[in-house]
Amino acid sequence: EIVAAIAGHLSGRRARPLEGVRVLVTAGPTHEPIDPVRYLANRSSGRQGYAVAAAAQALGADTVLVTGPTALAPPDGVETVKVETADEMLAACEAALPADIGIFAAAVADWRVKSRSEEKLKKTAKEATTAFELAENPDILRTIASRKTGRPRLVIGFAAETENVVANATAKLETKGCDWIVANDVSPETGVMGGQENTVHLVTAEGAESWPKLGKDEVARRLVDRIADTLAETGGRAAK
Amino acid sequence: EIVAAIAGHLSGRRARPLEGVRVLVTAGPTHEPIDPVRYLANRSSGRQGYAVAAAAQALGADTVLVTGPTALAPPDGVETVKVETADEMLAACEAALPADIGIFAAAVADWRVKSRSEEKLKKTAKEATTAFELAENPDILRTIASRKTGRPRLVIGFAAETENVVANATAKLETKGCDWIVANDVSPETGVMGGQENTVHLVTAEGAESWPKLGKDEVARRLVDRIADTLAETGGRAAK
Repeated sequence: EIVAAIAGHLSGRRARPLEGVRVLVTAGPTHEPIDPVRYLANRSSGRQGYAVAAAAQALGADTVLVTGPTALAPPDGVETVKVETADEMLAACEAALPADIGIFAAAVADWRVKSRSEEKLKKTAKEATTAFELAENPDILRTIASRKTGRPRLVIGFAAETENVVANATAKLETKGCDWIVANDVSPETGVMGGQENTVHLVTAEGAESWPKLGKDEVARRLVDRIADTLAETGGRAAK
Repeated sequence: EIVAAIAGHLSGRRARPLEGVRVLVTAGPTHEPIDPVRYLANRSSGRQGYAVAAAAQALGADTVLVTGPTALAPPDGVETVKVETADEMLAACEAALPADIGIFAAAVADWRVKSRSEEKLKKTAKEATTAFELAENPDILRTIASRKTGRPRLVIGFAAETENVVANATAKLETKGCDWIVANDVSPETGVMGGQENTVHLVTAEGAESWPKLGKDEVARRLVDRIADTLAETGGRAAK
């Protein structure tokens, strides 16, 4: 604490620049049940989102973490809400509003199966299952970013891409209606998914900034530092 | 060790009745990739299978555990092979043969998607994804149980059911070609999935025996005790 305060003072920055700021963070995958034993999921360890929540908390923010199923321990002092599906995650996010900052790091499943079975599907049933019909899940980032009332001042999305990372992310700024996108390449050969490191691009209306390969904790610290700087520059009002 | 030896002596049983017996155990779910970030999965913590492997090892067996993705630490002294898909699990099981006993506790996904995408599927693609076409996965239990050569002397399957538990399991003895089925009710209200306890029925050619609700460790101990008894009765040859 003392060291952090001194370091903050020396760097000309308050130690707890997010004091009094409410930050909503989502993390992890969602699991969409097919029947009692099967589900559709996105790969996500939850590490990046948990690190962001911990970093926001460390800068003094009043932080709430809405998380899908992960193997991680909730960060100390962070209000943590556990959910399973995309529908549940959206509901938990809406319940957590109002918030000043919304950071959507969860890997939300885009689809769920259209008709979820209450009993276990039998492989040997007369009408064999040959396909799962899909329904689109709510787009949590877009839903929160496009709220007429109660929109967080700064809405930040995460975009996991496997090709054209910056171009896809830049397009998402518009389609999702968010302020910043943290984009990364999650191609299997990068080892990002499930790993400790991440190579991200911060995409804003001003352009894309590529960060070096960093630990996920360090990516989180840089991101919340940037948020604190932006709030300070805009006198507590985030620029769109 | 000494206490176990005395206890074994008092109960008229050798402390390490599975010494020299090779036991293959499968555990956990399988994850079937849809694209680099999405997958189909079965729910399974892996706890029951890991407990069986540890219990077999404790009775002196030369134990190999083939496991899908779980959050569990491999049991001490057990050779552990990590896999992701059903295809990989079957290959790892075949590579682990010959074995005297095969215990198939994994919750193998019955289906994988027919065409796995190397790039992340886009929700906004022109040809929207509206269904996942499925292909049947190999039936690992039936494949190993029906081997003409190298079949383990005793092949034991696990059957997770949500209705008609014993009837479905009894039918599986025949269709899978295995010797015993450990059947359990995994309906959500039972709390078995992900939980520490299990209520199982041991189904053999002689009929079904319902065990009380027990910790998964105790279910594992009873099961390997039963295996040791059966091997002793049949002079080292398991009865079919």
